[in-house]
This record gives sequence, structure tokens and C-alpha cells, in this order.
Amino acid sequence: MTRDEIPTPALLLDMDRFERNLERMAKHVRTAGKQLRPHAKTHRCPEIAHRQIAAGALGVACAKLGEAEVMARFGIRGLLITTEVVAPSALRRLTRLVAEAPDTMVVVDNRDNVDALARAAAEDGVTLNVMIDIDVGGRRTGAQPGEAALELARHVAHRGALRLRGLQGYAGHCAHVMGWAKRREASHAAMTPLMETRARLEADGLPIDIVAGGSTGTFDIDVELQGLTELQSGSYCVMDVDYRRIGGRAGDTLTDFEMALTVATTVVSVPTGERAMVDGGLKAFSTDKPFPPEAVERPGVEYGFAGDEHGRLTITDPSRAPRLGERIEFFPPHCDPTFNLYDRVWCVRGPRVEAVWDIAARGRSD
Amino acid sequence: MTRDEIPTPALLLDMDRFERNLERMAKHVRTAGKQLRPHAKTHRCPEIAHRQIAAGALGVACAKLGEAEVMARFGIRGLLITTEVVAPSALRRLTRLVAEAPDTMVVVDNRDNVDALARAAAEDGVTLNVMIDIDVGGRRTGAQPGEAALELARHVAHRGALRLRGLQGYAGHCAHVMGWAKRREASHAAMTPLMETRARLEADGLPIDIVAGGSTGTFDIDVELQGLTELQSGSYCVMDVDYRRIGGRAGDTLTDFEMALTVATTVVSVPTGERAMVDGGLKAFSTDKPFPPEAVERPGVEYGFAGDEHGRLTITDPSRAPRLGERIEFFPPHCDPTFNLYDRVWCVRGPRVEAVWDIAARGRSD
Repeated sequence: MTRDEIPTPALLLDMDRFERNLERMAKHVRTAGKQLRPHAKTHRCPEIAHRQIAAGALGVACAKLGEAEVMARFGIRGLLITTEVVAPSALRRLTRLVAEAPDTMVVVDNRDNVDALARAAAEDGVTLNVMIDIDVGGRRTGAQPGEAALELARHVAHRGALRLRGLQGYAGHCAHVMGWAKRREASHAAMTPLMETRARLEADGLPIDIVAGGSTGTFDIDVELQGLTELQSGSYCVMDVDYRRIGGRAGDTLTDFEMALTVATTVVSVPTGERAMVDGGLKAFSTDKPFPPEAVERPGVEYGFAGDEHGRLTITDPSRAPRLGERIEFFPPHCDPTFNLYDRVWCVRGPRVEAVWDIAARGRSD
Repeated sequence: MTRDEIPTPALLLDMDRFERNLERMAKHVRTAGKQLRPHAKTHRCPEIAHRQIAAGALGVACAKLGEAEVMARFGIRGLLITTEVVAPSALRRLTRLVAEAPDTMVVVDNRDNVDALARAAAEDGVTLNVMIDIDVGGRRTGAQPGEAALELARHVAHRGALRLRGLQGYAGHCAHVMGWAKRREASHAAMTPLMETRARLEADGLPIDIVAGGSTGTFDIDVELQGLTELQSGSYCVMDVDYRRIGGRAGDTLTDFEMALTVATTVVSVPTGERAMVDGGLKAFSTDKPFPPEAVERPGVEYGFAGDEHGRLTITDPSRAPRLGERIEFFPPHCDPTFNLYDRVWCVRGPRVEAVWDIAARGRSD
């Protein structure tokens, strides 16, 4: 099958670019003396996770237990579940997962939750690797840095069936700060309390093997932190319009990683000279960013969402008006939730379809 | 299993409300002397389609061929594909579908596409039922009303292997006009050219069995049009925040149909007295509307998106602060793309889980 025969809308992975992205990040963390546990919430695809690990990653981070269950089933190890596991039925699922993949780690930010995890682990005869989730200013989950984190870490360390491994601090509010210098300033401000917390816990005699954090936006910023041991960057492997536009160390566009992910569409109607309609709408692209999908090497049109299954192309250059049946690819605004709309990704190298990979953890936010 | 044991985030269908919605719409179209072919792009769930047909619907409308293929596989007939089928490989799939489900209809808005459909149908030995797609002002697909539509209809009528069935006009731009009277005015203005086109084609001797259109917003408006034969409303079966707020004939809220669809979440972190985090983010709700999910009978919190897997609850009433592990349900802003995020919907009646239905056409926008 060729690229032009893939039924649209479809998610396409440019293998040359993807492979270069993996190599670049691997080299970057090696040079920096850090490790990488990339976030699989970006792709939810075990085949991509396997390739990240083959390129040197320790494992993958998973947003949720459901995602981790799928990764484990496909043989991925070194899992870190980055959202607290709280529901009673989820605790049972977690201990089953840990029985299968004993090096799995989970984050905590609450004493009662620590107790519940310890009880479940003891009852089911497993040892649970635990990271303290620290709020580094993202206003999501996490214990406060300093004293609160220390108390929680002590609580974990003193519970049987739990093993304290370290700290996680995800500064989501810094990931997309525009301009490298400003982003660096924001991220260092956010991450400094995490480093101080590390020192405080170690001074207390607590074992801190791992300090995890970082995004694709801060991949070459957070490695400057001596106390950070591993990066959790996810989007770097495929990139998206959102990350490209924040700028890099080298300039106004983040060019360290290449745009490897596209959505292929077909022009299904050219009703007037001013517009054409493609078959990719808000079920083909995530809509959580304030900017639209961007046509790939296809000047003369501008995309606008026009319903579940329709994208409206405003024809800005009449000499390049789309023709019925023309295939047009777009860079998605945001890769993670766009991956989550598709059951599979078509791996292409130039005109050739090289493989089709299941996005096996799609929809597994539970 | 009980409602409280469903792993979250999860999509829940309140069966009592859902069944009343189906009954009300069935009674409405019966009273109006019209037919109903509800849009399955809302739910992509064959079990829901079966129940709509059991309640009197002629079949279901499908946004795309892929959706129709799944519905046919689950025994649904009376399919109308409401987006033009254009790609060469899609034409072959269409004729296969028609061989299996001969009463399937497809829309056209382009002469070359008509020729391509006719060739494919003739080659594969099927007769293809065709509707002329009319642009009623929604600025999406469709031939212009009047002369252009007439010429295209003649072209269809004169091609072997094609059977002209009628007209479709979807006034998507009218569906969410706020206030019933204004919406009625907008929809009548949009749909009048469709009715005039019907008359013009009939005067030309062309057979027009079916004139299809209408949304949940115009369900009790478009039935006033003598020339309309069937409604395509979809969201009525489950409703959403977007449709509820447009108002109904009776007042500022559309109350003709009940809010039957919710997303269940769990509070996974209560890091401060001002906020709590639930495990439903932008992979749990569609984000295409400018307003957030709405907590169901749960005062004291306001939802804000906070990432792929996180919703941030701002605690507006400290006396009702969420507790860790609490389950909170939300009405989704927009039902169609929210259904499209889930592989299954949990059918609940009060505290009891009655069934789990596959959203078998999820992701089938191809």
C-alpha cells in the first residue's frame, strides 16, 4: 500500500523524522548525563515505546493506570504512573500490574492514599515503588515542596510494602512559555523548590534514587539541574504545531526535533471558488489549542474547523485551488490528544507505507 | 457491577432518560407526519441505532462511509451517508457496502463525482441510491440550490446504476442559534431554497421521494416545512450542554429532551483548600465548545481543563470541598466528539449498571 492509498482521515508517522527525533534525544540525555523515561501519554503506542527504549530510555511514563496496563501487556517495563491512583478498584488493578511488572512506580501526594496503597500492596503481597509528587507551581496534583513533602516521604518510608524511590515534579505551566530564555527562567524558578526538597529529604536520610520532570519544552533546560536524574519529555518524538512555535535555544522555532506526525485528509467537496472541504474535522484533530491544523507544504489554503467530519479550506490563492479528491496533510496543533483519536498510526517513509502500529492504549485514561 | 464501581473516566448513559428521549422524538415525528433517520455520528453505537429504529426510525444517517460500514455490519439498514464519498478506494468500499445493504444512500454535490460513482456502481453490479446535497447556507458541502442542483439531479437521473432519491440540506449554522423564535427564523430562511429546489426538480419530472434535513436544535421547527420528509436530528437521544442552552419553544432551556449522557470522574488529588483534581481532562471530554463540562447535581465546584488527564475543580463552596476518591459526574459540552473518545458506554439505571455497549464505529471517520 502507498501513502496515497491510506483511507482518510488518517494519522501518519514520518519514520525518517521520528527516528532522527529518537536519536537526537538519546544523544542529548547521554551528553547531559541524565536518563530518559519519555511520556507515553503522547502516543499511547507500545511500538513507539519499544523504539524509545531501544534508543536508550529507561521505560516510559504513563498518565494513567489503564495506559500502563496496556504498555505492560506489550512487554514494556520501567513504567512510572504519573497520576495518583486512588479509586478502590484501581488499587487492586495496580497491585496486579505490579505483580506482572515489579519495577512499576506510582506517584502519591496524600497520606490517606499512601495508607490505602500500603494496605493493598501488603494484602496482595507486592512491594510498590513510590515517588512523591511535588507541586512545582502547575496547580494540578502534588504535595507542596519542603516540609509537606518531607512528612509525606517519611510516611511512605515507614510503611511496609512501599519503597520510596524519589520525587516527581512536572512543571506543565513552563512547557509552553514562548522564547527559550523566558522558558528557562520560568522552569528554573519552578524546579528549584523540587531540588531543595530533594536535598532536604536526603539530609533526613531518605533514599532519593530518582528525581523526574521536564517536558519537550524544557528538554535542554531542566538537564542543567544537578538534582534531576531523568526527563519525562513526550512530544519530542513526533512534535506538533504547539511545541514548534515556542522557539528553541537557536531561534524562534523549536527545530531540535522534527515534525513527524501528520493527519492525511481528502478534499471531498469544492463547492465554490472560495472554499474546499476536507474530510478531517474535530474528530480528526484535537481542538484544545487556539490555532488550527497547518497544511504541510501546501500553500494557498487555510484550515478552519467546520464540524465533526469537515474542515473548511479557505482558498487564499485561486491559482492553487484544491481539486476534488486531492490529498492534503496537516500538522496537528497538539499531538497527544490527536493520537488519542486514532486506533492506528500509519508509518510512512516517503511514498511507502512501512508498517501500521496499533495505538493500543488509545482511550485508556482509566 | 454498580455505577460507583465503573473505572473512571467513563461515559455513562442514563437509560431512563435515554428511553424517554427516544419516545418523545418518535411521538413528535409521528404527530408531525414526518419520518426520522437520526444521525448516528452522535453516538457511533450500533446498540443505540437499533433502539432508535425499534422506536420507529427509518434507519440512521452516517457522517462517513466508515461509520456506515460498521452500522451495516451490526445489521442496521436504511443508511444515509451524509458526506460525499470521493477517494477511489472509498468508491470500492461503497459498492461493497451497497451489495450488503442495498438501501444505503449517498449524497453528491459534484458532476465528476457522480460519474465516478456511476462507473464504480456499474462495474460492481450495484444500483446506488443518490441524494443531492444542497448548500443551505452552512458553507460546507453541497450544490447551490436552484439551477445548479437541477442540473446535477438531471445528471444523476440520466446515469445508469444510479437512482435519484431526493435532496439533503443540513443547516448546521442554524442548529445552535440561541432562542427558539430566532432559530426558527434562521432555519426557515435557510431551508426555503431547499423546498423551492424540490419544487423545481419535481416540475422537471425528477423523482423526489426524500427531502432530509434538520438538527436537534430545529426538530420542532423544520417539521413545519411541507416539503421536508425526514429529520436527521442526532443529539436529541442524549443531549449535551450546548443544545440545552439554546432554549426551546417553552423557554430559555431546551427541555424537550433530557440530559442522558455523563462522564464519571474520580477526585484523585485535593492538594489545597481551593482546588481538587479529577481524572477527566481533554481526553475525557471534547474541547470544541467555549464552555466547560458541568458538574451534575454537585454544587460547590467549577470545572476547568488542566491537561490530557486532569480537570481542575475550583472549590467555590469550602463547606462542599471534594474528598479524595469522591466520584463526580459531568455533562459534556458536546456529545458527538465526546462519544468518539470512548470505546464503550456504560448503561446505568439509577445505581445499577444494566449493560455496556460498544461504540463500535468510534474513530471511523474514514
